[in-house]
Amino acid sequence: MSVQTSVSLPTLTNIATRLRIDSVRATSEAGSGHPSTCCSAADLVAAVFFAEMRYDPRDPQCVDSDRFVLSKGHAAPLLYAAWAEAGLLKRDDLLALRRLDSDLEGHPTPRLPFVDVATGSLGQGLCAGVGIALNARRIASDYRTYVLLGDGEIAEGSVWEAADVAVGQKLDALCGITDVNAMGQSGPTQWQHDLDALAGRWRAFGWHALTIDGHDLSQILEAFHQARQTKGRPTMILAKTLKGKGISLMEGKGGWHGKPVKKGPDLDKALAELESQFVADQDPAWSIRPPNVVARQPAKAGTIGPTAYSIGDSVATREAYGAALARLGAADDRIVALDADVKNSTFSEKFEQQHPERFYQNFIAEQVMVGAAMGLASRGAIPFPSTFAAFLARASDFIRMAAVSNLNVKLAGSHAGVSIGEDGPSQMALEDLAMMRAQPNIAVLYPCDGVSAERLVERAAYHPGPVYIRASRPKTPVIYGPDESFEVGGLKVLRQSDTDVATVVGAGVTVFEALKAYEELQTRGIAIRVVDLYSVQPIDAAALVRCAKATKGRVFTVEDHYPAGGIGDAVASAIAAAGYTVRRLAVTEIPRSGTPEELLDRFGISARHIVAAVTA
Amino acid sequence: MSVQTSVSLPTLTNIATRLRIDSVRATSEAGSGHPSTCCSAADLVAAVFFAEMRYDPRDPQCVDSDRFVLSKGHAAPLLYAAWAEAGLLKRDDLLALRRLDSDLEGHPTPRLPFVDVATGSLGQGLCAGVGIALNARRIASDYRTYVLLGDGEIAEGSVWEAADVAVGQKLDALCGITDVNAMGQSGPTQWQHDLDALAGRWRAFGWHALTIDGHDLSQILEAFHQARQTKGRPTMILAKTLKGKGISLMEGKGGWHGKPVKKGPDLDKALAELESQFVADQDPAWSIRPPNVVARQPAKAGTIGPTAYSIGDSVATREAYGAALARLGAADDRIVALDADVKNSTFSEKFEQQHPERFYQNFIAEQVMVGAAMGLASRGAIPFPSTFAAFLARASDFIRMAAVSNLNVKLAGSHAGVSIGEDGPSQMALEDLAMMRAQPNIAVLYPCDGVSAERLVERAAYHPGPVYIRASRPKTPVIYGPDESFEVGGLKVLRQSDTDVATVVGAGVTVFEALKAYEELQTRGIAIRVVDLYSVQPIDAAALVRCAKATKGRVFTVEDHYPAGGIGDAVASAIAAAGYTVRRLAVTEIPRSGTPEELLDRFGISARHIVAAVTA
Repeated sequence: MSVQTSVSLPTLTNIATRLRIDSVRATSEAGSGHPSTCCSAADLVAAVFFAEMRYDPRDPQCVDSDRFVLSKGHAAPLLYAAWAEAGLLKRDDLLALRRLDSDLEGHPTPRLPFVDVATGSLGQGLCAGVGIALNARRIASDYRTYVLLGDGEIAEGSVWEAADVAVGQKLDALCGITDVNAMGQSGPTQWQHDLDALAGRWRAFGWHALTIDGHDLSQILEAFHQARQTKGRPTMILAKTLKGKGISLMEGKGGWHGKPVKKGPDLDKALAELESQFVADQDPAWSIRPPNVVARQPAKAGTIGPTAYSIGDSVATREAYGAALARLGAADDRIVALDADVKNSTFSEKFEQQHPERFYQNFIAEQVMVGAAMGLASRGAIPFPSTFAAFLARASDFIRMAAVSNLNVKLAGSHAGVSIGEDGPSQMALEDLAMMRAQPNIAVLYPCDGVSAERLVERAAYHPGPVYIRASRPKTPVIYGPDESFEVGGLKVLRQSDTDVATVVGAGVTVFEALKAYEELQTRGIAIRVVDLYSVQPIDAAALVRCAKATKGRVFTVEDHYPAGGIGDAVASAIAAAGYTVRRLAVTEIPRSGTPEELLDRFGISARHIVAAVTA
Repeated sequence: MSVQTSVSLPTLTNIATRLRIDSVRATSEAGSGHPSTCCSAADLVAAVFFAEMRYDPRDPQCVDSDRFVLSKGHAAPLLYAAWAEAGLLKRDDLLALRRLDSDLEGHPTPRLPFVDVATGSLGQGLCAGVGIALNARRIASDYRTYVLLGDGEIAEGSVWEAADVAVGQKLDALCGITDVNAMGQSGPTQWQHDLDALAGRWRAFGWHALTIDGHDLSQILEAFHQARQTKGRPTMILAKTLKGKGISLMEGKGGWHGKPVKKGPDLDKALAELESQFVADQDPAWSIRPPNVVARQPAKAGTIGPTAYSIGDSVATREAYGAALARLGAADDRIVALDADVKNSTFSEKFEQQHPERFYQNFIAEQVMVGAAMGLASRGAIPFPSTFAAFLARASDFIRMAAVSNLNVKLAGSHAGVSIGEDGPSQMALEDLAMMRAQPNIAVLYPCDGVSAERLVERAAYHPGPVYIRASRPKTPVIYGPDESFEVGGLKVLRQSDTDVATVVGAGVTVFEALKAYEELQTRGIAIRVVDLYSVQPIDAAALVRCAKATKGRVFTVEDHYPAGGIGDAVASAIAAAGYTVRRLAVTEIPRSGTPEELLDRFGISARHIVAAVTA
């Protein structure tokens, strides 16, 4: 059976050979990299780029172009060679691979205009592909999403999380291609060349699965054709390949993972072998298939409007988060929400009720939730994935890669700290601030009341790059009025006088412990300055230094978090240059079940402990 | 077909009813918790505890006892009720559930002697079960491992990572039981009661899968029997159940996740309904099946013997790590190693070559690697799971739970920081110190040379609780002699004089940048104190304060890590109480590909930057 394309098989064969040559040359020049994995996938990439996908090679970010995600990011030279073949890159520039002065990095990053999400941490590409495919539905585009996986990386559970969500969402515009070269880094893969076993897994997960010879271009094109014809479910093409295909030195041989061909006789021989694989090609002019470009209104920022709360109301920040998100979603259809089966705890269900078509349920699978958010963000959506803050740790490596990609993902974690109470330590996030602050480009916001939660949702949505919003389980009193404004990088001084003997910096639930301590100390004639550090990163260092100076360098932080990497460290780092230090009140041991009040007190972060510290 | 057990079906029926009653009473008393999920699994738990498992109810840690892991940790009251039924707990104590003064926490933790690993972060139990089953093989015990999963949690990719490894390891002593009650927290599960679809997935992954009615005790017993007869592969029993089974108020109904029955008429009615389910039971005395206890030699700590390196040798700490681990493994057969297909980069292959029977390949699946290590550690092994430090982030939530459990897991991460060079940011760990330090009970060790790497492997093995060893990619010179000793919580002052103008604290590769800066400054007549902070946590605060004092408070840290949560924060926190602050040199932005030397310099942590900072 033959598939109609604008490009002949001999032409594709020659393209694949050029991609191999370029990949081998670039890695040899760099002295590191992965030519063998480029060679196994070269026919697949030639076919998808030059016979299958519809895109504008001069405008790789075109909204309606088909998308390609190189999940096996170590095959980066092959991707770069494809874009050179497409005309976007100069072929000679490929030889700058992995150099500090080139954007052609060892693994692809969005410094390059044709890379949507950074890859190189395996098992992430299909999750991103789910998000990219969901975005097509959001914007009513007919673009298709292709993800090239290695067979080694399907050992990552995140791949199977993506498999579930893709089926649940009926993503028939999503097509995976697994380059089954049967070799991992350190040895054979678990399933090696048993393509039927692999196909059985995808079928058991509800996918349309095809097995082909990944070096037979007509089989590859036919598989893409079948994928396009398949409705209601995604397709996975399992392509049997040989690592190092086309080069006798490495074809199908072990010991060639991540190893360039040595310059000199080895490289000369390899290149000569590849050159000999060019075939006669009398093909007339051919062209890349163009996308179906649709005119759209430009997006603009929305607002959530007036606050829903009055001073003295009692509302959990997690609930205010969900309500605010639902309202912002009404004003801006780029806003989408993703859940991992806790929407009734994070209150993202409020968004779902208003905007079911932009709410994506991932069930209990945090990696695909964040990975899909990365894909959505890469295509112009403003995604808010949320779950218990503790369980965002499950997606820690995705968050790391979202930071590498500087994607517009707005993470929200509820149930922070011991203040959740009886559920115990497994449900308490006490290291999430450390995880998020560690990434230099993640903004970390931590509202203490309903009004600040609302405003920070709005700020988060339009702050460029990744943002984390930390929310709490208990209801807290609303302390801010309707006109109060909040900035990424700001703080609020809630109590101050000329006679303050100490600065106490809290955030979230500990703001209220600090305020209680303030009241208690007032009765003893002692004044303290109380700061609500609602923006933990970036941090208002100048304001904190002013507070430190005004209180003679006596600065206390109190946080519902472990000591390392949290608010204490953030404040300490901010005021160190001015010569000030911090005394940290934090949860210093693994906690346990109890009531919220008991636990705040037991673990040293209640008002009583603040009073004791200040008066010590 | 009937299965021979020492307990009759009517007796088991009544036990299941008692477990339901206890679970409902305890959660109503606590005012929170999950009675509905206890009720769905009560028949399964009654059968596994009182007809299937062989154990000593007075000695739950008996080495040869069958193991039970409650992966669906929110059914904790059911677990506690089973141990009360077994006689270990007092029935009345069950009513202290979730109280600060009780160890019966909201989710199980190893504070309780019958809990091997803390659960409550879903999708982890089967990974731990893999490790527990591997341990049986290590110690030549015939104990079997049972893991009770919820159907919601199989959306977690980690479950499928465990599925792969269990098949690869042919773990026929591992038996999973999925309580398919078809309801998640916020709505129906993705696959609901389609047991055939679920079974198809397990079969596609190579498991023996059975579908049964989870409220039919004879079907449950028969399934356990079949699991025991199945050789060469693990078994998954998929049990169709109803959430809230036995209580008309909640049976099979939505809205009952995590909701206790209200005390008063609701509770009275529920308990009366359950009481009415007791059946006539003329059973003679029955007993729990005993384990096959085998006599074993007590374990004792080994040593790696004399160092393999001389001052001036050049070796990467990752390579010294692998070599030392192999040698320690020869002296202590509790030492085991786990890999995620990078053994030739972390050099754990050196351990595999010496001890293949204690080396467990997980392919590219870091969650099961760490989860299996948790299981192994819980049963007396001393596991060293290792991969690129960046990819340990994939297992961040497992590491969090390992800390909650205070398990003896020795994590090792190689390829830390920008010093890996050309591979680029996806492969660089720049937030691993923040992740590990965040847990208050993880010791964080960071050798700079071959000798310290060897000694710290030994220290890590015998330090109680979780440990992280950070290793580097580049070769570094050996600077320590054969008699040098290293302690968890120690540091080395490498250069000092009476005229030092600053303290420079490095670790790993930056120790050598600090030493280069020292040499450069010497030529200018400037002396600095150089510290190798090989133990980042715990930290030798007293020694750092002495350094700070001796150098008039001028303390610089330099680290191949982002600024937040790393060495700068650790040192700052350690010397804050003495009034000293730190100036931090760290990687302050997302890095990129380049040579190691270029990147150290470009991102501000090379000798040149240290010199500039000290002389500023």
